[in-house]
Amino acid sequence: MYAVPLAPDAELRPLEPWQAEEFLANIDRGRAGIDAFIPFATRSTDLESARATLQGYADRQARDTGRIYGIWWGGVLVGGCMFVHFDAATGTCEIGVWSEPAGQGRGLVTAAVRRLLAYAFEERGMQRVEWWNSTVNERSRAVAQRVGMTLDGTLREHYPYRGVRHDMEIWSLLASEWPGH
Amino acid sequence: MYAVPLAPDAELRPLEPWQAEEFLANIDRGRAGIDAFIPFATRSTDLESARATLQGYADRQARDTGRIYGIWWGGVLVGGCMFVHFDAATGTCEIGVWSEPAGQGRGLVTAAVRRLLAYAFEERGMQRVEWWNSTVNERSRAVAQRVGMTLDGTLREHYPYRGVRHDMEIWSLLASEWPGH
Amino acid sequence: MYAVPLAPDAELRPLEPWQAEEFLANIDRGRAGIDAFIPFATRSTDLESARATLQGYADRQARDTGRIYGIWWGGVLVGGCMFVHFDAATGTCEIGVWSEPAGQGRGLVTAAVRRLLAYAFEERGMQRVEWWNSTVNERSRAVAQRVGMTLDGTLREHYPYRGVRHDMEIWSLLASEWPGH
Amino acid sequence: MYAVPLAPDAELRPLEPWQAEEFLANIDRGRAGIDAFIPFATRSTDLESARATLQGYADRQARDTGRIYGIWWGGVLVGGCMFVHFDAATGTCEIGVWSEPAGQGRGLVTAAVRRLLAYAFEERGMQRVEWWNSTVNERSRAVAQRVGMTLDGTLREHYPYRGVRHDMEIWSLLASEWPGH
Amino acid sequence: MYAVPLAPDAELRPLEPWQAEEFLANIDRGRAGIDAFIPFATRSTDLESARATLQGYADRQARDTGRIYGIWWGGVLVGGCMFVHFDAATGTCEIGVWSEPAGQGRGLVTAAVRRLLAYAFEERGMQRVEWWNSTVNERSRAVAQRVGMTLDGTLREHYPYRGVRHDMEIWSLLASEWPGH
Amino acid sequence: MYAVPLAPDAELRPLEPWQAEEFLANIDRGRAGIDAFIPFATRSTDLESARATLQGYADRQARDTGRIYGIWWGGVLVGGCMFVHFDAATGTCEIGVWSEPAGQGRGLVTAAVRRLLAYAFEERGMQRVEWWNSTVNERSRAVAQRVGMTLDGTLREHYPYRGVRHDMEIWSLLASEWPGH
Repeated sequence: MYAVPLAPDAELRPLEPWQAEEFLANIDRGRAGIDAFIPFATRSTDLESARATLQGYADRQARDTGRIYGIWWGGVLVGGCMFVHFDAATGTCEIGVWSEPAGQGRGLVTAAVRRLLAYAFEERGMQRVEWWNSTVNERSRAVAQRVGMTLDGTLREHYPYRGVRHDMEIWSLLASEWPGH
Repeated sequence: MYAVPLAPDAELRPLEPWQAEEFLANIDRGRAGIDAFIPFATRSTDLESARATLQGYADRQARDTGRIYGIWWGGVLVGGCMFVHFDAATGTCEIGVWSEPAGQGRGLVTAAVRRLLAYAFEERGMQRVEWWNSTVNERSRAVAQRVGMTLDGTLREHYPYRGVRHDMEIWSLLASEWPGH
Repeated sequence: MYAVPLAPDAELRPLEPWQAEEFLANIDRGRAGIDAFIPFATRSTDLESARATLQGYADRQARDTGRIYGIWWGGVLVGGCMFVHFDAATGTCEIGVWSEPAGQGRGLVTAAVRRLLAYAFEERGMQRVEWWNSTVNERSRAVAQRVGMTLDGTLREHYPYRGVRHDMEIWSLLASEWPGH
Repeated sequence: MYAVPLAPDAELRPLEPWQAEEFLANIDRGRAGIDAFIPFATRSTDLESARATLQGYADRQARDTGRIYGIWWGGVLVGGCMFVHFDAATGTCEIGVWSEPAGQGRGLVTAAVRRLLAYAFEERGMQRVEWWNSTVNERSRAVAQRVGMTLDGTLREHYPYRGVRHDMEIWSLLASEWPGH
Repeated sequence: MYAVPLAPDAELRPLEPWQAEEFLANIDRGRAGIDAFIPFATRSTDLESARATLQGYADRQARDTGRIYGIWWGGVLVGGCMFVHFDAATGTCEIGVWSEPAGQGRGLVTAAVRRLLAYAFEERGMQRVEWWNSTVNERSRAVAQRVGMTLDGTLREHYPYRGVRHDMEIWSLLASEWPGH
Repeated sequence: MYAVPLAPDAELRPLEPWQAEEFLANIDRGRAGIDAFIPFATRSTDLESARATLQGYADRQARDTGRIYGIWWGGVLVGGCMFVHFDAATGTCEIGVWSEPAGQGRGLVTAAVRRLLAYAFEERGMQRVEWWNSTVNERSRAVAQRVGMTLDGTLREHYPYRGVRHDMEIWSLLASEWPGH
């Protein structure tokens, strides 16, 4: 029904539980890189678990506490982005992304994040958008830098994932820093 | 975030609980005509009840059993349409609409219904789309006729609403009747 | 505890989850004919699923939105009838039936349906009772005709069941048509 | 729908939430005597609370953990009885009763209790039926004695009700003591 | 975090779901004697079921309707006691205990029960504390006698457990009987 | 039942919904200072809302996701501390505190926090304990410093409270930094 153009032949669209098969195929193609940092990918290993991941986001969208979006390139789902948290009452949310190799290197993810930032600041009046990345995930940190975020701090040994406690960086962009404010 | 053009200066967009104020204003402007046939309008009389109506649709969207869409004309919400029911397992759904006077007579509602029919048949593989209207609601019947539906029957004294038991017509369009099938 | 005589040696009684074994045996004896049209029979294939079917009706009875009744003939459960839907607020309900061969040809089912019609119109003040049957289920249509119902229409390709989309007839009886009104 | 004759012009029937008005009138007529010992009567003071009392029993019936029955005499609801608890797994249940003055002195309550005992022992295979009464409620104790129950003990200061801690007698009848065992 | 000394080298402490492994080991060491009378032990046969038993008590503690406590002797969990029921509104509760052989014969269980009685009467203002035991469980009856309880009665064939219907004694201690009252 | 000595005449104890009156009195005495930074105090303005605050913590304790403790000094509840979050799976939790003036300046709060740190690291094996404070709450920051925590960063304009978006500092202590590690 809905689509937002990101680039020639690339679109951002809703991603819902009935699309679990397409979502699982995308995760499976990119699993080597995605699993390293994205817990919901690690948990989405078959049709039922992939559908549960998307259902979790569908439930959060109904409560306005999270959302997920897919990036289609050449008609294929190659990645996406999400409001991991979304709290309209406090004006704070967090954006995250994932992508298989075919979705990388074309600026699609950064364009999608810019679109979510515009939605957060312009349509919803959010005051602070966060970005969390492990200190060893340089590709993720680069997106935060590219959209003009500031590093607020590093939570030491915050998150145990796949056998290591990661130091997590928290980046932020404030409404007052968004162009056109 | 998302929008589908319906006509110059008119768009179909998601309609969510956080937009309850805009939704209530639309209902209030058209209440004389809308209340006559739309129970959810009759129930949406203040901000809390209007938000509850939209939350009901948000919950149904999360379960893939219903959806609601707003029609904006000149930047103002003037009406909308919804999948009153949506059952992917049986391939059957029902479309309904509402509009304040400013949204009527421009073909916006019919254009929106055609967009929902396309979504149902082409994106979701539905087999049968229904339309229910009271025999005294000629404006509603006209939409069903305009999009090429067939009258399946009339349920006698089916629905008590505002003191009268209405005879309800059921119209349908089958996947085999949708252009391009 | 309770029983309503339908004929010499035949009674209508409550049918509850603790009677699942008796219910399953009845369904199993009549499965060839019952499965063709009754989804709850198709789903009731062992003790657990048969109990779940009856529990569903027990829950609906508690909310006054449905009820189920068994027909015992010679002390054996041979079929029954149910209020598939029951909506006291709108005064509309739907009656359905099932029977194994031993319960057919004796007028038991028709007598039971008349008893439910009397309950609906006389005890509960319902205004419209519906009956739904597939166009290919002539035995079912005959019951609707026998109790004096009127055909309101035929929903084309309405219900996918066991690989075929059935055209469904909707019959109705109004309170004004019930003897003694 | 259902009824069990208790005496000429007296019947035991289901008592459901939609009959709350009739139930409240019965409680109100007998409140002076009923409130002294029946907590659910004390809580049923208007239509909403009376309906909640009956809905509680409707929910318990759906789970097979309790049931309520009304006694109609001359077409008027004058009292009733209930399985306060019902545990099919352990074979133990408890019977209670209430009545307005018009329902007393005719043996209706005792006849109703005998009917529930028969249901418990003969239809459901219960092994032990209990009866609880305050030591100061002689009318209640008399019913237990009349149906042949045995006093198992007295729980000292067990139940605080309307400002006094009542000593509660527990009477029982075992399956082996039921005629025809 | 918390501990109450019961004897040299013995303590009463909270027992929570995260301690399920320790709890299961205790039950397994004493299973021969404990299973004979303690249903929750019979149900706690592996880590998952043992955790479910403790989670049940954690949920009841949150609602103030039950509590469980472990007895550690020499650093090992050897038994415990619980408020099987706890009803602050009526001022009535029930105490139960379990122990593996290593926890018996040292007065630990009786000391723990005295601690719970003090909590019930002194901190929470309870009016009546009950103790239930099968007539064949002499060890359990002895605890009731040791803390000064009175036998209120014997419920005949009350509780079916492991193939036998047990006669259950109900003992009680009233607030007026608690030292220092 | 349980108590941990913090100082002569001061104890840390469970704080539960049935103690809401005592809790409300404590909050009311310290409201001027507590409300400035503690949302749950701002929300606890009468007996019902105070009980709801404690019930929230009781529910979280049952799920092992949070806990609350009161500090009694001279027999009066003067403040307390809580695990605002507690995630055993990731080994991360957050500690918070509140106090009325009578509970300040005696080291009670710091002693209580040390006791919770010991519980987290020694009894539960947590790996990282967090402390969050507004940059303008110097009294709170001082506690973090006193127990040896490190500042991980400052979330800019993170938390809107009483009309101002506060910059929030996140401090942490790791298991490897806890004495005796």
